[in-house]
This record gives sequence, C-alpha cells and structure tokens, in this order.
Amino acid sequence: MNSFLLVERVSYHKPNMPTAPYVNPRVLEAQFAVRGPIPMRAEQLQAQLRAETADGGTSVLPFTEIIHCNIGNPHAFSQKPLTFYRQVMALVDAPMLMEIDGVVAHLPSDVVARAKQYLQQSGDGKTGAYSDPTGHLWVREAVAAFIARRDGTTVAPDARNIIIADGATSAVRLIMQLFIAGPSDGVLIPIPQFPLYTAQISLFDGTAAAYYLDEGNQWGLNAQDLDGCVKQLKQSNASPRLLVVINPGNPTGQVFTRATMEGVAMTTTLFSSQMKCIKRTFMVLAACLRASARVILHMPSPYHNTSCISLHSTSKGIIGECSRRGGYMELLNIAPIHHAQIVKLCSINVCSNFNGQVMTALMCTPPVQGDASYPQFREEYDGIFSDLKERAASLAIELNTIKGITCNSVDGAIYAFPQIQLPHKYVARNDALCAAAPPAERMAADARWALELLEATGIVVVPGSGFLQPEGTFHFRTTILPPKTQMAAMTSSIRAFHTKINELYA
Amino acid sequence: MNSFLLVERVSYHKPNMPTAPYVNPRVLEAQFAVRGPIPMRAEQLQAQLRAETADGGTSVLPFTEIIHCNIGNPHAFSQKPLTFYRQVMALVDAPMLMEIDGVVAHLPSDVVARAKQYLQQSGDGKTGAYSDPTGHLWVREAVAAFIARRDGTTVAPDARNIIIADGATSAVRLIMQLFIAGPSDGVLIPIPQFPLYTAQISLFDGTAAAYYLDEGNQWGLNAQDLDGCVKQLKQSNASPRLLVVINPGNPTGQVFTRATMEGVAMTTTLFSSQMKCIKRTFMVLAACLRASARVILHMPSPYHNTSCISLHSTSKGIIGECSRRGGYMELLNIAPIHHAQIVKLCSINVCSNFNGQVMTALMCTPPVQGDASYPQFREEYDGIFSDLKERAASLAIELNTIKGITCNSVDGAIYAFPQIQLPHKYVARNDALCAAAPPAERMAADARWALELLEATGIVVVPGSGFLQPEGTFHFRTTILPPKTQMAAMTSSIRAFHTKINELYA
Repeated sequence: MNSFLLVERVSYHKPNMPTAPYVNPRVLEAQFAVRGPIPMRAEQLQAQLRAETADGGTSVLPFTEIIHCNIGNPHAFSQKPLTFYRQVMALVDAPMLMEIDGVVAHLPSDVVARAKQYLQQSGDGKTGAYSDPTGHLWVREAVAAFIARRDGTTVAPDARNIIIADGATSAVRLIMQLFIAGPSDGVLIPIPQFPLYTAQISLFDGTAAAYYLDEGNQWGLNAQDLDGCVKQLKQSNASPRLLVVINPGNPTGQVFTRATMEGVAMTTTLFSSQMKCIKRTFMVLAACLRASARVILHMPSPYHNTSCISLHSTSKGIIGECSRRGGYMELLNIAPIHHAQIVKLCSINVCSNFNGQVMTALMCTPPVQGDASYPQFREEYDGIFSDLKERAASLAIELNTIKGITCNSVDGAIYAFPQIQLPHKYVARNDALCAAAPPAERMAADARWALELLEATGIVVVPGSGFLQPEGTFHFRTTILPPKTQMAAMTSSIRAFHTKINELYA
Repeated sequence: MNSFLLVERVSYHKPNMPTAPYVNPRVLEAQFAVRGPIPMRAEQLQAQLRAETADGGTSVLPFTEIIHCNIGNPHAFSQKPLTFYRQVMALVDAPMLMEIDGVVAHLPSDVVARAKQYLQQSGDGKTGAYSDPTGHLWVREAVAAFIARRDGTTVAPDARNIIIADGATSAVRLIMQLFIAGPSDGVLIPIPQFPLYTAQISLFDGTAAAYYLDEGNQWGLNAQDLDGCVKQLKQSNASPRLLVVINPGNPTGQVFTRATMEGVAMTTTLFSSQMKCIKRTFMVLAACLRASARVILHMPSPYHNTSCISLHSTSKGIIGECSRRGGYMELLNIAPIHHAQIVKLCSINVCSNFNGQVMTALMCTPPVQGDASYPQFREEYDGIFSDLKERAASLAIELNTIKGITCNSVDGAIYAFPQIQLPHKYVARNDALCAAAPPAERMAADARWALELLEATGIVVVPGSGFLQPEGTFHFRTTILPPKTQMAAMTSSIRAFHTKINELYA
C-alpha cells in the first residue's frame, strides 16, 4: 500500500441543517490539528494554572507549566532574535532614531548603512506605502542574490522568478487557489503531511491523494509511489494538478537527497506527458526551508522543464521570526498564464507586510566577514544552530530509549515525528470511549494518548492522526525547541507517562 | 432599476482549452481593476520616463511625472507617518536600542513606557513568536477600549468580539470564504463597489447581486433597494448570505447617516425572517473606517440582533500605514458556529503579522493630553487631517468647474468618484476600436478615457467600469491624496484633457 486516496469528503454534499446558521460546508470540513482540541485544552489548563498560582497558591494540576511543543515557534522558548536583524528593522521603522546623539556612533556601522539603504530603496523612506503586489524590488533583489550565492548561479530579481509572500502559509494558500476549483482537481501530498495542506485542499474542495514517506528508511520518498497516487486520482475522475513535497520534512524532519529530488522531477515530467497534457500542467510545490529545488534546472531535457514553486520563510530555523510573516516563492519554469494569475492573486491581496519583507531581505543578506556586526552575528547564529542541533540529536536519542517509542533522526527541520506503540488494550479502551461519546468527542488513539499526556504532564504535542499516518500506526509530532533542561524534564515525563500506559494496559 | 444580478459567470462552466496549462477557472475569471491594465501601462511609462531622463535627458512623453491616484496609498505622496507610532514600533522591534546612552532620555517618556508595556505584554519580549490566531490579547484589549471610548459603551477584549486581521483585505477574504461555497451563495454589494468584493466573490464562485447607491443623493443607500437584490438572488436559486456595506464609501467617499445604517439593519432582519432562516444567517459586513456599526445594538428588538462584522484598518486616513497590513474585525451578534469557524480559519492562516498588530494597538491608543508625545502628535495629526479635508473639498470644487464632470463632496474617505459625460462620438469611437480589437484589448469607454488621460497627462485613475456603475454612466475613481500644488496641476491637466475630448468629439 504505497498510496491512497483521501475520500474524507464528509459533509460537502450534505446540506446544512435547515435551522442552523449557514456556513460554507468546505470551511466546516477543514481540519487543522496544530491548533485543534488539544492546544485548546492546553489553553484552559494554562489559565487554570495561572489562576491557581496567582497569589502564591499551589495548583491542583500535576505539573507546574505548559510546554508548547505543538507549534514550531522558536522565540516562544529561549531562542533569541538575531540582534543585527532587529536593529536594522527598527531604524527602518523609525529613521528619526538615527538623529539622536550617540545612536549612530553606538550602533555597528553596517546596521546604519543597511537601514539607510533599505530606506532609500523604499521610495526614499516611504516605508508606510504599499509595495508592488509581488514585493519591493529591493527585497526581490536580496532574495535573487541569496539564491545565486547559495546555488552558484545567477537569478534575475524579476517577479517572473521571485515573489514575496506573507510567510509560506499565504503562498501555499495562493498556489492551492490557483489550481483547485473542485473535486476534479487533485493534489498529491505526503503522509505524514503538515495539516495546512489538507486544510487548504478541503477549503478549495480539491481531492487529495497521498503517497507514504518511508519511516523505515529515514522518512524517504520513493518517486515511483507517486504513480499510485496518479492512478487513484484518475479512478476518481480527478486530474493531478499539484504535487506537494515538504523538504525538510514537516512533521518528519528529514532532508531529501539530491537523487530523491531528481527522481521526483523525472516522475512528474513523465506523468505530465502520459496524461497528454503539456508540460507545466503538473507542478511541484516544495516547502524548502534550506534545500534548493533548483537541482531540477541542472537535469537533462525534458526533466529540467519541471515546473516548481519553492517556498522559504523567515519563521523557522535560526531566525525564528514567526510573527513577521516573511517569506518568498521562487518560481521555476512557470507558464506565463500561471505567472499572470499568481500576480493577479497577489494584487487582490494588495501586498505582503513591510516588516516581513524587511526580515526576508535581511535573512537573505546577513552580515559577512569584515562587516562591523559580523562577530556578534556569527556568535549568535552559531549558538542557536548548535543548540538546535544538540536538541535535535538528544531528543531522538532520549526518545529511542523509551520502551514503545522509536524516533528517526532529525536532519533539517525543527520537528520530530516519533512512532508510539500503543498497547492493544489502550486502543480498545479508546474505541469503547469513542463509541460511547458524541461524534465531536471521538478521537484517534494517538489523539487520546496526546490528550492524556497533556493532562498528566503539561506537554502539548500534536497526535500523528492530525498529520495522517499509515493505518494502524501511531505517532506524535513534537518540536525540538524546548531548551536543554526543559527538554530533559520533558523526555523524562514522556518516559514516565508512556511506561505507565504500558503497565496499565499490558 | 434599483438592483440587478451580476451574471458575469463567463468562463466557469467552460472547460479550459485542452492544450493550455490548467488554471482554476475562478481565478481566471476574477478581475481587479485597481491593479489592472491602466496601472500596468503606468508602470511602463514610469520606466520610460526614468530611462529617458536618467542622464539629464528629456523624455518624449508629454508629462514629467506619473501621479498615482489609482490606489489609496497616502505615504506614497507627501503624507508622513505619525512619529509616536513609529518610535514605539521601533523600540518594540529592537528593545536593545533603549540601552544606548541618551536614547531613553531623548525620547518622550510615553514612547518608552508604551514600548515597555507592549514588550512585557508580548510574553516578556517574545515579539518574534506567533500570537494567538485571533491576535495578541493586549492588541484586542486596545481595540476594545478604543471602541468603548468612541461609542460610550463597554466591550470585552475577548476574541468573541474582536479579531485582529492583516488589514481589512484579509478579513474580507476570510468572511467571503466563510459564507460562499458556490453559485447558490449570494452576496449583496453596492454599485459602485470596491473591486476586492467582486474579486473575492468570483474566486469563491458566489453570486453577486447589486444595489445602487444614489449618486443624485450624495451616494445614499435606500434600504428598500436591498429587497430587489434578494428577489433577484432567489430567482437564480441563490440565497443571500452576506450584505456588503462600505462606509465610508469606496470609491464614492460618502458617510451614511445613522438612519441609513438602522434602515439596513431593519431590512436585513426582515429578509432573514421572511426567508424562514433563523436570525444571524444573514450578515452585514461593513467596511467601517470611522463610522460605527454598533448603532445596531441600540435598536429595538429584533433589529438589535442583526449579525454584523465591522472592519477597520491602519491603512487609510490619518495613519496611512498601508504597508503594515494592520486591522481588526469587530463581531456583533455572531452565532457560536460562525465564530468557531472564523477562529479555525484564523488558525489555518496562523496569525496576523506582529507589526500590523502593534500599529493596530497604537491606532487605538494614541497619546492623550498630558502625555509627553501629545503636543507633537496633535500637531502632526491635525496637520494631516486638515490637509486631507482641504484636498477633498478643493478636488470636488475644481472638478465641478470642468464641463462634463460632476463630483459629489467627499465626506469621510480618501476617494472621489466623479461622473464624466462622454460625448456620443467618443463612445462610438470606443465601440469601433473594441470591435476591431482582440477580446483582451476591448474596454469600456471610461477605461479608454482613463487610458488616454494617462497617456496624455501621466495621471493614473481607475475607470468607473472597474467598480461597476449604472449602465450608460461613466466615472473614474481618484484618491484625494496628491498634495496641494500637485493637485492643482492635476485638476488643470484633467480640465485640459477633457475639454479637448469635448472639442474633438463634439
């Protein structure tokens, strides 16, 4: 079983109840586990903790804090912003600060120079004005130069190649909207996947077909599995419009090899020709935080013509500026009609936010050796990087020592997706609880596990069922973000909790 | 003819050409005149001007600058940001600046206090982290206090009442998505309307029915005209889901009276009961920049139960911080199911950008008498306000002295929507040009007029046809933003241009 069709079109064709207020049934249908019932329960517990401990009191809860491992939100933990980026952004927001005696002299010279450059490039300081719908030209130039440096190539900063977005999320929504008009439009997604993709597919009423990542092989992608997805789609009268590749993996944390990416491009091209639709009908959408989708361009003909939109954001990794909603789309081999429609959608959305644009330019143009800010930047950057690396490694190692939990290594994302063996009796108990509960309170066995973990320990993770997973397996997604001591406490709590589950339901 | 159904469902049911790359036909169908062919031509002319004058050369064009009156973008003209807002935002972005000797002493004390407050309220300085999907609590509190002060009432800062958005644009998209699943979902919109509404209705495949604003009566709204819209929708098997009220008017610039708003609420409630759907099925969506939709709450039963979402943004008016994408939705009488689905959609979009949230809080909490920043703030604010007022008045007066142009007064927005009398021969010439042109180059007579105005004068306005208008009438939308001297030159150019049109096609 290498692929299957998601046929969870639950409520769409059923009319709403006649007495209930009307809601678009696609909205009702959409699910988003990252912010679902478990995080909502965590909020209630957080409020309870706060209230009970307000006047030095003691909480009745069996933990003293809520640890939010459900969302990749680095600054919510101990990760600090990079000083250079924040200093430049502040001077761009308020250039009058540079007129205060001592400010310019005190700040590193490259901070001031960079701020002046961005101000000058934003229509002589008109930073409050709308930018071009595809982003300021100077931001696109910074992105183009970044890609060119990273991949040893040249890239024109033209909106044909680069479009600035409000984080990767808004770009995903835009691309889904471009291709999905209804059930006959199919999207290939990995299992496990990030629930944003299934949510957007539901919202636009498309059909999702899933290919499995190979947990036994470091969450690898076998390009030939995509074949099964396309067949499934055809059988349900849907055409494949879009292939989602998430790299580095979310929730799975792996980084695909160059050979994998090439295999995907080859398979994609073959599908397009088999289907007698011209090339570019079928697109690859890669959420690429670090890896480059440009390997495609170096492939032999016709594979180098594979259409691809690759996304990058300022939210994750070393920068972690989630709140800025900064990011970009890199467009490869995009048909003119697609490009024109993307630009129109950007225009309808007016433009992406200015501070996100500034942060995107900064991400693409960090200080370099010789710049006044470089030593501090390097120290901060390397410190965060080695912290993340250490946490990623220690989390996987620790989890693997817990009986009934196995975890692949985390190569390039801020997430891990460990598998949990749930005792047969635990699963049976969940089935019984669900049978007795109203539909809204029914949940998968790993959702029950995550909820009970939260109630027992204060740790918030997202159940694997929220990301989709092979039938009969159970997982959870956790971020690698809690700092060292907190993570030690966290893995020890998970160990105690799961050991107890194993004992109780042996 | 007080209302009509927009049946421009041009391409949806036609399949895409088999050899062309696939695009969601709803995306192809959507139109957005504010950034359409005329602004695109303006960009070409701008580039030509720049190139020809680069080395002190002279352009062959008959004008020396492009004046962008097509988009309400105050800072792109001479309007300056409010110093207090920018100073606070910069310190919140980079609190390390407060550690530089002299900075705190130099800045007004309320700037520093406010920045420290916002930092502390953002999880002790964790401003790079995602906020709650509905916005930071402290931003919602600022909005609640603002509404309470403005309307002499109390408002809980609860996400039941207030949700922070990336400008009004993202809120409009979200609300349209909540109610529109397909052609059977109807939306009532004014004519003229801002094209964002028709674009989003097209994108979600809904059916728009239009009510006319009364140009002869200061662009007034006659609530009984809504009746005709609902009948039209029923005849085409669509149900009214949403009524769009734009107040202050865009493109029309008027402000509705309290009696008008009450009439709308009454009519809305009557429709809901006539249709045998429970109250709250039918919502009012008001884009309220200044006026309050809360008059509804003070009406007698059952009218005070009218459901309404009212929008406000940081983009327009005195603040004009378009690029920040800040704004909020105020929810009145919203059914729990609608609220839950709105929150879910916000969660899927993750959260609105932080700097937009800061700007929203600042907009709602300006310095008050006694604060250190107050004198400068007052001076800046009043200066911008009186400038805008003066420009609004002088633009209408000047345009009304041009033969063949009439313009209502601009009461509360940054737009005017003058009517142009086009000579019969000019319209006939346009018809002939269109008949000979490929479909993509055909345009309404006022679009031709706007294009020729651009080519002759460098002034960019949006043709009335982009906003919809009564058949046989012609208009253009212009902002009131060009500064005094530029506006004098602009009205004089329009006068010369239109006088020539009148002579040539007499």
